[in-house]
Amino acid sequence: MPGQPKVLSAQELPTNEAKWITLKKLSWQDHDGKNRLWESAERKTRGSSGIDAVAVLAILRSENNSFQPSTVIIEQYRPPIDKFIIELPAGLIDAGETPEQAAIRELEEETGFKADKVLESTPILANDPGMSNANMKLIILRVTFPGQLESPEQKLEAGEHIVKRVVELSKLDAEIKEYESKGFVVDARLSHFVVGYKLAEQIKNGNF
Amino acid sequence: MPGQPKVLSAQELPTNEAKWITLKKLSWQDHDGKNRLWESAERKTRGSSGIDAVAVLAILRSENNSFQPSTVIIEQYRPPIDKFIIELPAGLIDAGETPEQAAIRELEEETGFKADKVLESTPILANDPGMSNANMKLIILRVTFPGQLESPEQKLEAGEHIVKRVVELSKLDAEIKEYESKGFVVDARLSHFVVGYKLAEQIKNGNF
Repeated sequence: MPGQPKVLSAQELPTNEAKWITLKKLSWQDHDGKNRLWESAERKTRGSSGIDAVAVLAILRSENNSFQPSTVIIEQYRPPIDKFIIELPAGLIDAGETPEQAAIRELEEETGFKADKVLESTPILANDPGMSNANMKLIILRVTFPGQLESPEQKLEAGEHIVKRVVELSKLDAEIKEYESKGFVVDARLSHFVVGYKLAEQIKNGNF
Repeated sequence: MPGQPKVLSAQELPTNEAKWITLKKLSWQDHDGKNRLWESAERKTRGSSGIDAVAVLAILRSENNSFQPSTVIIEQYRPPIDKFIIELPAGLIDAGETPEQAAIRELEEETGFKADKVLESTPILANDPGMSNANMKLIILRVTFPGQLESPEQKLEAGEHIVKRVVELSKLDAEIKEYESKGFVVDARLSHFVVGYKLAEQIKNGNF
């Protein structure tokens, strides 16, 4: 019977049975020359790009100002959290792809939107550097409409369930608070983006 | 001999020998009612708060506008990345602490700054929800100076090497680009904060 996705059970996974992630014991020398140990989690899927994943900040805009500058966020069930997470569109980099190509592909698959320009590509960023070597790039893509916003169809794979939502940038803070009040969990990176956006608006408006 | 910290060797760590992190095999039911598997990394240190860590966005401001609104970032060597990472001050939550108490303590330990107000506390955020259950809260703290910025001493533990740096919020984008050009790696959450801050400034200035 179809229904709400959920975790049914969890058990310890021996490292030598894991296919996608692994644990490493790092022997390292500290600032004082002393040998120390650190434990780290790693993805096993990293390819020759040296980058695990890309996330996409799409800037949707209208040539005739029919709508305010907007972005697109997604709702996706994530088993590690056992909740629906609000995130930027994102995905792993396929073999032979540049990060920018992966970003354009993922944006179109997950939201249907076709980017017309790469506005910015960050250097490699560390997702959670105290715990893992997982890394990413944030790619900022422009999606231009002659007038009104259109909503093209997603190109999801079988079994992929992703809901997209277009939100005006200046309303993103209120939107993610609304999601949180309904039991969704927000990705830390998206939340930090929104905190930065709102703070700059507050400071520009003289609220500090 | 003291010197630059570095990773000397890395080896696979069996799950049953790991002290700080672990791997889990999750059995979950998808939207279509189908049973599937997911692999997840987890910290073993999460306490009764249900939250692994807090990060601190400190807003430093002057009562007589002696300096522009600023924040404090830190430089810290992180073995999983084997580089110096630029991050917000952060730390794990001690037993019996609220997230806000942990944030105020970590800010003072890592930077010396004493917060005078909790401006905002986000809900629980997911750090990297495709790979791990690691979570956090971002706590926004206010640090007020009557006039000029002062630079109190850090309260670091033995063996802790953290460099703090105060940066005007509107110059943070240029500052982290400068760090990246010198071989530092920026934490993804800090980078997303900066991208949001800069984008709001650009849009307010009519650059979109």
